[in-house]
Amino acid sequence: IHSKSKESLWALLLSISDAFSGWLLMLLVGLMAGAVAAAIDITTHWLTDMKDGVCLVGFWFNHEHCCSTSNQTTFLEWDRCPQWQSWAQLITGTSQGGFAYMVDYLMYMFWALLFAFLAVALVGAFGSHASGSGIPEIKTILSGFIFRGFLGKWTLVIKTVTMVLAVSSGLAVGKEGPLVHVACCCANVLCHHFTKFRQNEAKRREVLSAAAAVGVSVAFEAPIGGVLFSLEEVSYYFSLKTLCRSFFAALVAAYTLHSINPFGSGRHGPFDVNFHADWHPVELAPFILLGIFGGLWGALFIKANIAWCHTRKSTRLGRCPVTEVLLVMALTALLAFPNIYTRMSGEELLSKLFDDCSLFNSSLLCGYQQGNSAASRPAGEGLRTALWQLALALLFKMIITIITFGIKVPSGVFIPSMVVGAIAGRLLGVGMKQLAYHHHDWMLSRDWCSPRRDCITPALYAVVGAAACLGGVTRMTVSLVVIMFEVTGRREHIMPLLAATMTSKWVAGAFVRVGFDEALIRLKGYPFLEPKDEIEHRSLAKDVMRPRKSDPALAVLTQDGMTLGQVEALVKSTCFSGFPVVVSQQSKRLVGFVLRRDLLVAIDDARRRQKGVVSASQVLFRQHAPTQPPKAPPHLRLRDILDLSPFTISDRMPMGITVDIFRKLGLRQCLVTHNGRLLGIITKKDIVKHMAQIANRDPDSVFLN
Amino acid sequence: IHSKSKESLWALLLSISDAFSGWLLMLLVGLMAGAVAAAIDITTHWLTDMKDGVCLVGFWFNHEHCCSTSNQTTFLEWDRCPQWQSWAQLITGTSQGGFAYMVDYLMYMFWALLFAFLAVALVGAFGSHASGSGIPEIKTILSGFIFRGFLGKWTLVIKTVTMVLAVSSGLAVGKEGPLVHVACCCANVLCHHFTKFRQNEAKRREVLSAAAAVGVSVAFEAPIGGVLFSLEEVSYYFSLKTLCRSFFAALVAAYTLHSINPFGSGRHGPFDVNFHADWHPVELAPFILLGIFGGLWGALFIKANIAWCHTRKSTRLGRCPVTEVLLVMALTALLAFPNIYTRMSGEELLSKLFDDCSLFNSSLLCGYQQGNSAASRPAGEGLRTALWQLALALLFKMIITIITFGIKVPSGVFIPSMVVGAIAGRLLGVGMKQLAYHHHDWMLSRDWCSPRRDCITPALYAVVGAAACLGGVTRMTVSLVVIMFEVTGRREHIMPLLAATMTSKWVAGAFVRVGFDEALIRLKGYPFLEPKDEIEHRSLAKDVMRPRKSDPALAVLTQDGMTLGQVEALVKSTCFSGFPVVVSQQSKRLVGFVLRRDLLVAIDDARRRQKGVVSASQVLFRQHAPTQPPKAPPHLRLRDILDLSPFTISDRMPMGITVDIFRKLGLRQCLVTHNGRLLGIITKKDIVKHMAQIANRDPDSVFLN
Repeated sequence: IHSKSKESLWALLLSISDAFSGWLLMLLVGLMAGAVAAAIDITTHWLTDMKDGVCLVGFWFNHEHCCSTSNQTTFLEWDRCPQWQSWAQLITGTSQGGFAYMVDYLMYMFWALLFAFLAVALVGAFGSHASGSGIPEIKTILSGFIFRGFLGKWTLVIKTVTMVLAVSSGLAVGKEGPLVHVACCCANVLCHHFTKFRQNEAKRREVLSAAAAVGVSVAFEAPIGGVLFSLEEVSYYFSLKTLCRSFFAALVAAYTLHSINPFGSGRHGPFDVNFHADWHPVELAPFILLGIFGGLWGALFIKANIAWCHTRKSTRLGRCPVTEVLLVMALTALLAFPNIYTRMSGEELLSKLFDDCSLFNSSLLCGYQQGNSAASRPAGEGLRTALWQLALALLFKMIITIITFGIKVPSGVFIPSMVVGAIAGRLLGVGMKQLAYHHHDWMLSRDWCSPRRDCITPALYAVVGAAACLGGVTRMTVSLVVIMFEVTGRREHIMPLLAATMTSKWVAGAFVRVGFDEALIRLKGYPFLEPKDEIEHRSLAKDVMRPRKSDPALAVLTQDGMTLGQVEALVKSTCFSGFPVVVSQQSKRLVGFVLRRDLLVAIDDARRRQKGVVSASQVLFRQHAPTQPPKAPPHLRLRDILDLSPFTISDRMPMGITVDIFRKLGLRQCLVTHNGRLLGIITKKDIVKHMAQIANRDPDSVFLN
Repeated sequence: IHSKSKESLWALLLSISDAFSGWLLMLLVGLMAGAVAAAIDITTHWLTDMKDGVCLVGFWFNHEHCCSTSNQTTFLEWDRCPQWQSWAQLITGTSQGGFAYMVDYLMYMFWALLFAFLAVALVGAFGSHASGSGIPEIKTILSGFIFRGFLGKWTLVIKTVTMVLAVSSGLAVGKEGPLVHVACCCANVLCHHFTKFRQNEAKRREVLSAAAAVGVSVAFEAPIGGVLFSLEEVSYYFSLKTLCRSFFAALVAAYTLHSINPFGSGRHGPFDVNFHADWHPVELAPFILLGIFGGLWGALFIKANIAWCHTRKSTRLGRCPVTEVLLVMALTALLAFPNIYTRMSGEELLSKLFDDCSLFNSSLLCGYQQGNSAASRPAGEGLRTALWQLALALLFKMIITIITFGIKVPSGVFIPSMVVGAIAGRLLGVGMKQLAYHHHDWMLSRDWCSPRRDCITPALYAVVGAAACLGGVTRMTVSLVVIMFEVTGRREHIMPLLAATMTSKWVAGAFVRVGFDEALIRLKGYPFLEPKDEIEHRSLAKDVMRPRKSDPALAVLTQDGMTLGQVEALVKSTCFSGFPVVVSQQSKRLVGFVLRRDLLVAIDDARRRQKGVVSASQVLFRQHAPTQPPKAPPHLRLRDILDLSPFTISDRMPMGITVDIFRKLGLRQCLVTHNGRLLGIITKKDIVKHMAQIANRDPDSVFLN
């Protein structure tokens, strides 16, 4: 009895685990992605700080951690403690003077080049899938194609390691895109342990959609924004059933990351957003200006980067990825070190730009002249220096970002775009603040910006600028606004953010029609059917289907009357992945569709096992065998492998509707009939080529694998 | 030249307005819905307060407004000022004593009955579409059906007015569902002024989806939650193109409402949420307990209310809606007045329950004994009274909510459900706080709940409870969490909210499979195909299609060979809304599909205008006319009205996939073929009936209009 109750308990547990396996998988994806993201964050901080110096207490401490364990740190100068030694201090014994500066400079370049070299060498040696952001490939996978190994264990390991190295080296790359890829790898690896998801391709894609949400969620600690990102940008068919699961996984991942707490004490997200000011409707004008800037930057970036990628392909650079990475790295490090705003990492810079000036803030950016209140002080010497440095940093970041993307290391476009926008926004914000201070009697500003009131927050301009530039590059709107809303945590800021991102999307769209990810998909020639394109063209299904008029007739099988030898000859002489089965060659009435793979397996099986099957045997796809002369070899019955309900459309179907059907039902091919007669076939590849043709692009640029 | 440049400017403006007409429409929908919602809010506050008393300065002021203009009001007693007089004060001259109480009681009942009577009389006389919440009907409309007049101007006016009356009267109804209906009416009315949207049914539905988001956005000042609500709950095909537009409209509406500022000074939403406490993982246990309570309440409410609706239908009550409303109103008012928590409106009660106790809060709910800190004080006499009253209020609200829904006034289920949950949550929260106070040395609470720390926030329990009960009734998850997140504004609360709503959804789902809206759709028999149901059944298309085996053969036209007389006879003898056209009766090869309406118009037209067309004329659906004997009457060519690409599926198509195709492509009918021969037809109604049959419900309960 004991063993029986044990068994039934086991069975009960099994049935529950089956019912909840989807939720369990989501929980595991969230935990794993959160843990990996935490490990990435901690290691990145440590390696980034290693470029500056080392902790004497233990080399595995980063700067912040090293000094926070020290009790000799005062509140204001938390970043100076005797335990943390810059390389110059360690080697020359002093941190002052030209020689020490040179030592620091050289060590900075040495580590940067070392990290970059390791990253590109690892990518080159082990995981070519690890380069780039991975989002274009994930979009293509979710639209129904298969890249072998792209989401495997090996890619997960290599991408995680090289991403840490690339970000730490100081290259103008972010870790948001690669985090989405890493989260999808986690999900795919975990899927293999669940029978339900290993076998069902559609269910696995739902899990990958959720994983994309998880990736953004851990990147920005923004679970709602992550789900919307997956919905708006990444997923092809976002099933509403998975909405709740995605949200759950994104939330679990964000909490996991948060509880391992890599962001340090007191912070609530990757950026240290710290302001609580409101805004005035008049400020919508500068916000829209930032939107225009963001749109122009997005268009410039996409055009210039794609042109640069074409140059790379056609010159020697493309054949020596290691050399290219080292060249870009050397240039970046050489120019970045002298300017404090480019020397720090992108996330640190964003935190500084998103942080408002309180009275006790001693940073250069807050170098206002002393006044009796935080509000509206005139700019001081420090601020002027900071503005110059920021302007130079803006120029540097814009150029370096354009030439960095496309090199063979993991690279996300989010942080570099946001940095450009945040610098521009902060500059505009400081300018507006000074304008309001010096002209507070202007009509526009009189009511809401009297000298005693703190009326303009440069940090808000930085946030809006960051959103605008990211929007111009990626063309996200709602998801971007929600992500930034979750980062700042203030719903008052939704309106400026939406105004800027919408402007930026329109402006960028006027110059370059698609976003960066889709531009990359086109550049790489992936067979991706854009879910938002509408076809205005008047073509019909018969114009797109194969065979064309000049081609040989469509290769079909008949449901009876063909011998095994004839079938084998037909299969051998063509390379189609499936064959329609018709009643007879004359009537062309469609019976079903059989896949090449299934056909080959069945024939092979029959030849080996079924006695008497020879090349002269009749192949039957129909239910009832016709009577046949005595002594004929036995039939080969293949009705079991026949798909009896293939998808058909009429040859007069407008292509607009056809494309819609392919998208919504996720078809790979569709048979075309005319008055019940089989005429031809349309594959997804035909459709992608047709759409490229309509858009006046070269249809042969579409990748054929 | 002047007039020419003027003209070209005009043309430019026209083309821009056409390109941006979608955005313009969204802007107008947002502005209109926001303004209507603001008017509703202001009027509701005024009428609600009128049940208590009147403002002597001007009868059109509500209580808060009346006293805030007075300078004799102290900070603590803002609600007592000489300008505001209760009915007893006005009539008897005193507010003390039994007689004054009776006068107040009677006046309260008088106004409540008057408002309820006006509401039901208006609904009965002018707009039967105005009763209920309207969400079930909107879901059905968005799934592709048409209710004439349901979204018209007249419904808009009547629903707005009666909704104000119903909510003000004190009936247990909320205004969230009706606000969604009102927003959709606004959108529909505005659509008529844009050619693009007036003519295109699909585009109009996209606008209605956005309007549903707007409705929730103005109800809770939660634009993101509104968009997710529309996405998750209301919309059938949510096009991602409209995501951004919906968000824009929702945001504009929320800002419009906010700038007209009906919520009074300082508040940021409909409820006065005011606490900033964190929670401890141990508290997930009571939160999940609240989830279970919410699920049980949801299941009980749906079962009991549907049973009550059936009773109503079969008894005299159903024939006298006015009597029923007055009876329910009298019962509600009679029982509600003595208890302060039931006397106030649902929104006011929620504000009170969501508000945490500060040290200076003198309300009964915060009647703790005096201590040296706000944290962990023992319960005082005031709190005990409040708890009793709340417990009675909970019982009362549960019963009255169940019998209220289904009466013929506008009624939303959101606020009443939330009230039940918030009361239960607050009771549990207060209990937990006392438990932690008296047993602060328990192991579980020792670390995080020392006597000096403020560790448990009853207001958070109220919020979680409200979400759980609303989740149990409506089965919303992500959208609900996001709405509550926007209401409280603290992302720390996302996790408890998600835990509670998910638990509540599962628990409620174990008892009643569908949410309240879908239960109503079934009760009313609307032909709605639930977008989330999966078919596990093994039926095929041929089992569902018509004609069945015992039926007469399918009525088809042939592409030639039929005379006008034969066609007319066929059309007259059947009531189908369309006819397939085949090559010949023998081959049954499908050529196209022609709509009954188009056919009748074309025949009528030909008979009147085309010379020589008589009943013996051949009707031709093919391109080239066959040769025919001389002296025969001329042909009638009808190829223009033929849809040459009707949708077809194979008779072996599994119903699971067929349903998916119907849903995703929004089909109303689909032809069924076997080996290229036309066999039958499946309509959406057949599918809805089939699904009802599978779920063991009566297929004939499906509405046939």
